[in-house]
Amino acid sequence: MKPIDWKVTATDGEARAGILKTRRSIIETPVFMPVGTQGAVKGVRFEWLEDELDARIILGNTYHLFLRPGTDIIRKFGGLHKFTSWNRSILTDSGGFQVFSLTDLRKLTEDGVEFRSHIDGSSRFLSPEVSMEIQAALGSEIVMVFDECPPGKASIEVTKKSLDLTVRWAARSKARFTELQDSEAARFRALVAGAERDKSREELRDESRTLTGGDESRTLSGKQALFGIVQGASHLDLRKESLDRTVEIGFDGYAIGGLSVGEEKPVMYGVLEYLAPQMPADAPRYLMGVGTPEDLIVAVARGVDMFDCVIPTRNGRTGSAFTSRGKLNIRNARFADDPNPLDPDCGCSVCRRYSLGYLRHLYQAGEMSAATMISHHNLAFFLDTMRGVRQSITSGTFSRFRREFLNKLQENQEAGV
Amino acid sequence: MKPIDWKVTATDGEARAGILKTRRSIIETPVFMPVGTQGAVKGVRFEWLEDELDARIILGNTYHLFLRPGTDIIRKFGGLHKFTSWNRSILTDSGGFQVFSLTDLRKLTEDGVEFRSHIDGSSRFLSPEVSMEIQAALGSEIVMVFDECPPGKASIEVTKKSLDLTVRWAARSKARFTELQDSEAARFRALVAGAERDKSREELRDESRTLTGGDESRTLSGKQALFGIVQGASHLDLRKESLDRTVEIGFDGYAIGGLSVGEEKPVMYGVLEYLAPQMPADAPRYLMGVGTPEDLIVAVARGVDMFDCVIPTRNGRTGSAFTSRGKLNIRNARFADDPNPLDPDCGCSVCRRYSLGYLRHLYQAGEMSAATMISHHNLAFFLDTMRGVRQSITSGTFSRFRREFLNKLQENQEAGV
Repeated sequence: MKPIDWKVTATDGEARAGILKTRRSIIETPVFMPVGTQGAVKGVRFEWLEDELDARIILGNTYHLFLRPGTDIIRKFGGLHKFTSWNRSILTDSGGFQVFSLTDLRKLTEDGVEFRSHIDGSSRFLSPEVSMEIQAALGSEIVMVFDECPPGKASIEVTKKSLDLTVRWAARSKARFTELQDSEAARFRALVAGAERDKSREELRDESRTLTGGDESRTLSGKQALFGIVQGASHLDLRKESLDRTVEIGFDGYAIGGLSVGEEKPVMYGVLEYLAPQMPADAPRYLMGVGTPEDLIVAVARGVDMFDCVIPTRNGRTGSAFTSRGKLNIRNARFADDPNPLDPDCGCSVCRRYSLGYLRHLYQAGEMSAATMISHHNLAFFLDTMRGVRQSITSGTFSRFRREFLNKLQENQEAGV
Repeated sequence: MKPIDWKVTATDGEARAGILKTRRSIIETPVFMPVGTQGAVKGVRFEWLEDELDARIILGNTYHLFLRPGTDIIRKFGGLHKFTSWNRSILTDSGGFQVFSLTDLRKLTEDGVEFRSHIDGSSRFLSPEVSMEIQAALGSEIVMVFDECPPGKASIEVTKKSLDLTVRWAARSKARFTELQDSEAARFRALVAGAERDKSREELRDESRTLTGGDESRTLSGKQALFGIVQGASHLDLRKESLDRTVEIGFDGYAIGGLSVGEEKPVMYGVLEYLAPQMPADAPRYLMGVGTPEDLIVAVARGVDMFDCVIPTRNGRTGSAFTSRGKLNIRNARFADDPNPLDPDCGCSVCRRYSLGYLRHLYQAGEMSAATMISHHNLAFFLDTMRGVRQSITSGTFSRFRREFLNKLQENQEAGV
């Protein structure tokens, strides 16, 4: 029995539509995963994510949750799902990316990485083994290997050295992960079987049944899945080497790491064009931390299935809305008396009800509802875009969808909004 | 035809239960009105206020809306309801209180008050006439007269002088208000009759029908209602004089202003005990800007029908939750691993789902969801408390409700939370 099940349901060129089943939810791919860094998607309550936006999987950040509230608290609650009450799937990253991007002081050794918490300056340590232990305690459906992420413009020597370390860490991640699975899988089975009697678990069980169609979930092992990460910066030969050595170790899915980390856009697109089609066809391909709506479409065209990015909520907090006509900035004075919604083509609850003029007023007045509602719309736009992508792949019209979508995205820019 | 209709449905001692009908909604009293200072209830979307919390009336602040976005913008949208999309009742204050509490530089004359905007320092002017004009443009269901609000500890001489001015301003408010009503009432009737064809107005009309029970709304004039304000600080004889002179002018309802503005609690309760029962029995009595759950219960016992206060949302933003056992501070370390809800006796969507431990984590991590969810719960607690108050008045058990409610409020304090 496998921890997850992923099947291609349609292809259009290199683009794939598929169904990813985890022990907690059924996820149609290509999928955009909202980011719940600290156990919450910033500004958007789970009720909206479930009922209206219908997100089936979100991302949690091991680094942030490790530092606060800490593994002990989350373990006491019985894992991240019970702690947060989010009962659908969670993918957790390994903490590697944050250690290398958020912390300044660190000591990198073969063993792992010592760093200072960005919260209280305390000295902390992460390694492949520690990351797997934290992610086991979090109880996410998909676990990521602990990797080193070099800058996008790293030289070939630096990248090669980093890649070798990442491959060794991937092997160690898998070894420790495998050891941990029996106990964690047992814990999850107990949870699902109803050994405990609280309401949230009842709900979870009901939801698991609904989402996985009852008996089908029994074909899954109940364990966590582990994804490997391909590094190699902008060096295509190193990307290929990283891919081959990662696949050799063997994982449930494969991620592309180290993109959108400072390199130019054409470089990223070049790596995607080269790398994605070579990745195993029978496993989900996940592009980490990317990106804009354009990026998503381009990557889907290369055969990528999964995405996460903070920009829908981060931009939402700064008043920047993604729309079918491109981005707009709610602070723009031209919106002050505009009765139209953020995006006339969007059916989300924000666009159905609130005007640009009102949202601009809320933003200018410092009302947090501006941030929460623009974040909400942005997530709706990303998730709806992926629904459109899936439908077009299924109906064999992805090329047209892509062309029309990208053309329309230019409209606001051309109008000077 | 009257602009509003208010009927007592039950009394218990001096406490009254009633039904207040406006052109937009039916409101059971005693009622707590959430505060939507700048056209939004801070952190809580209208969807929650309507569907779950079932608030039938909220408050808007003339001072804030006058400064930003300004009357021109709101008039362009067709009033505050259309601007914000809140289609139930709105009460607007006159701006007087904010001018005297938020602005430092001002010139007070018989004519009105000149002040500097707290936003951009620009020089602005408010008077009874200007306030009525702004509130007519806002299109609230209940308009408040423009008053001067002296400090709670003002001397008898200062208070008397202020009271005389407030009475003269009340008469001027009514005169200008009356002039304005024909045109504004016509505008509202056009709105309701469907002269315009946009979706939000359709929804408004549907909702108006539902809430006012169709034909019954036709017994109302469609105009705004105007409430007078009784001042007099802590001087009971001046309170009585203010009441008599305000009633002599004649209003649709009467408010108690100038309480909870720096005076001691027993002083406030003394004024309420003396004043409220003397206020006209056949009109709603509104205690402005008050207060804690205890304050509300005490005031209801003296015959007050309407309340507004920012504390549910203001405290929500600082992590302070109102519960049936008293206040608790979510930052308290003892909650870090607590799986219980904010209030086990609360049925709101926050308490049904989220734990103290999770909410504390969100607060400590700086997630705005902490503020929005604790604000949401606090509003639920205030609105549910008023539902309990109304039921107990109707069933003649208000005294017992009051005793048990106030006793239970002590529990957290005694437990040292």
